[in-house]
Amino acid sequence: MKKIAILGSTGSIGQSTLSIIEKFPDRFAVASLAAGRNLEAAFAQCQRRRPRLVSMATEELADALAARLKQAGITGIEIVYGTSGTVKVATLPEVGFVVSAIVGVAGLEATYAAVNAGKPVGLANKEAMVAAGEILTATARAKNVPLLPIDSEHNAIHQCMRAGERREVKRIWLTASGGPFRNLPLTEFENITVEQALKHPTWVMGRRITIDSATMLNKGLEIIEACRLFDLPPSAVKVTIHPQSTVHSLVEYIDGSILAQISVTDMRLPILYAMSYPERVESDLTFDMAALGHLDFEPPDFARFPCLRLAYEAAERGGAHAIALNAADEIAVEAFLERTIAFSAIPRTIEKVLQETPEIHPATIQQVLELDAQAREIARTVLAAGREIAGVPRT
Amino acid sequence: MKKIAILGSTGSIGQSTLSIIEKFPDRFAVASLAAGRNLEAAFAQCQRRRPRLVSMATEELADALAARLKQAGITGIEIVYGTSGTVKVATLPEVGFVVSAIVGVAGLEATYAAVNAGKPVGLANKEAMVAAGEILTATARAKNVPLLPIDSEHNAIHQCMRAGERREVKRIWLTASGGPFRNLPLTEFENITVEQALKHPTWVMGRRITIDSATMLNKGLEIIEACRLFDLPPSAVKVTIHPQSTVHSLVEYIDGSILAQISVTDMRLPILYAMSYPERVESDLTFDMAALGHLDFEPPDFARFPCLRLAYEAAERGGAHAIALNAADEIAVEAFLERTIAFSAIPRTIEKVLQETPEIHPATIQQVLELDAQAREIARTVLAAGREIAGVPRT
Repeated sequence: MKKIAILGSTGSIGQSTLSIIEKFPDRFAVASLAAGRNLEAAFAQCQRRRPRLVSMATEELADALAARLKQAGITGIEIVYGTSGTVKVATLPEVGFVVSAIVGVAGLEATYAAVNAGKPVGLANKEAMVAAGEILTATARAKNVPLLPIDSEHNAIHQCMRAGERREVKRIWLTASGGPFRNLPLTEFENITVEQALKHPTWVMGRRITIDSATMLNKGLEIIEACRLFDLPPSAVKVTIHPQSTVHSLVEYIDGSILAQISVTDMRLPILYAMSYPERVESDLTFDMAALGHLDFEPPDFARFPCLRLAYEAAERGGAHAIALNAADEIAVEAFLERTIAFSAIPRTIEKVLQETPEIHPATIQQVLELDAQAREIARTVLAAGREIAGVPRT
Repeated sequence: MKKIAILGSTGSIGQSTLSIIEKFPDRFAVASLAAGRNLEAAFAQCQRRRPRLVSMATEELADALAARLKQAGITGIEIVYGTSGTVKVATLPEVGFVVSAIVGVAGLEATYAAVNAGKPVGLANKEAMVAAGEILTATARAKNVPLLPIDSEHNAIHQCMRAGERREVKRIWLTASGGPFRNLPLTEFENITVEQALKHPTWVMGRRITIDSATMLNKGLEIIEACRLFDLPPSAVKVTIHPQSTVHSLVEYIDGSILAQISVTDMRLPILYAMSYPERVESDLTFDMAALGHLDFEPPDFARFPCLRLAYEAAERGGAHAIALNAADEIAVEAFLERTIAFSAIPRTIEKVLQETPEIHPATIQQVLELDAQAREIARTVLAAGREIAGVPRT
């Protein structure tokens, strides 16, 4: 029986993880949950899953959850809060696998703590890998624990890499749907509205990641994540536009063979893969080969998606620049969603922030968090500086 | 240095193998060749590759080759002939890998001898696997030697199977181009000419295999080969029509993940893979991902391709029926190429022969050869019986 800690249990990945655990009661059990700010969802999860430990974002939320549980007559659940609470969730002695799914760098300290405590980690939190990939992979290597990607693309790469040795990999190909603006005339990018950008053609996801798919900054973060996870130079991480999102990614070997992974677009599959690795577990997440039909592939358009170019630059420079790419994007996407900047201002903001970012390679998580805070500050300053970068928001 | 024996050195696979050996002189060397009936090609190969041993089909050809070599002042090459000669080529003590590429059951005895002598074998001779798959795989298991498929589809399966354990494979999908008659109206099948059937859309191959691609009997043989090679029931071996021949085959795992292999349509790639397995060797056989474009997949039409149904039946019954499928097809294809029967008579002949085949599971290669001879005899009788099966040949 593998006992699972979920960092971000009330989010989409967290809920999918819980549904997998429920489906395989002989294999997996819930140990601990970091539930964040959603009190109702946290309460419902406690009621149904009976974890030993739950962490909430703040002391007030922890108190409120305790009161609700007491009222419902539910006992035996320890409640903690804040970063130290999330770390406790991730490092509980009986935990055998940690699903790291707290969006943004918030999950970083707990993810690091899990790896440092020798826990195998399933990574859905790509920002952790972008911001602190060097530190996380070095620690994982030292502790000899696997980092298993849950992002569908990296999960596909992980699977395809089993068909050869690491030194036999020539390059990898991340597939990208191309988002909703793959065929939009370039001149109309300045006029993209929040509503248009939130319509993703194939995946249903959170708001930031949906915008990041529209700008392809999300693919940019995945490029950096792939460099860190698989120890590849940015030049060996390519992107191919594949609108059907059927092939999740590909690995090209030195002999000329390319391995590709295909499956339903359902995050439960990479979650199950990561949780049961190195085994595969029978599931009903069957892909209908009769419906395979037509698959299209085309090279990405770097003029249309400047975020891709910026991501390669940040990947090359690494350290503070990878952190700044993610941080600046988060600030810019927030501003776009609040309708204070134009869609095209997102890459403009990132580019400006990258220019103002010093060449630093952090050695500790604390340093990572400081560089992240600095990058956000720079991004806010850049956006406050006026219309030249912010553009005219469309409503 | 791996010393290679090539059974069928003057054929297409043999020549590709020689070009691979030439490209990697630090890894591979020619040890011995079974060159068959092509005296000129055999002489040229002796001149250029200097094998230690060469086998020709007959004593006269062996004498003729000896005379040519003497005339040219080439010494140190032993020349043998016939089945015993081919066996000697396959079992030479210094041979570290045998490429089995003699078309038809002719290569069977030598392939068996190689496996029995503990030599790893690269199998391009699919008929050997169809006719004597149970015996060959049992012997390979007992001797703990790998049987590495060189057929592009089975080679793809072999690669995709590395991403999991054998027990985790749910089913496999062999891709098929669908041949030149994928979209031909069913009513016109009776009128197909030899010239039409010899035009294969993607691969350039020998005459029989090209006709077998047009009837899809080739895919049928591959179904049986896959059952034997990968120890799968026929129900777990599926076919998907993929006209571009870019994806060479796919493996579906129990968790829902499907792994696919993509590469250039060049037999040198699976040959290199088999010869260097478990390593991968850097080659210039690079697939251009920018040209990936559109990939189509559709279910096969069993009404259009009765050979597929017949192959599944033969796969289920195994033994003599698998042998008869191959033998009857070879006779029928010869007759079609000689313009004595119609294209549609090929499956009609096979069906009739299968009906007349007894339920026998051979235990020795000798028995396999006898059953093969019997099946050919039945096929000739069936074809001689008249127009009902033979149809009207088109010229």
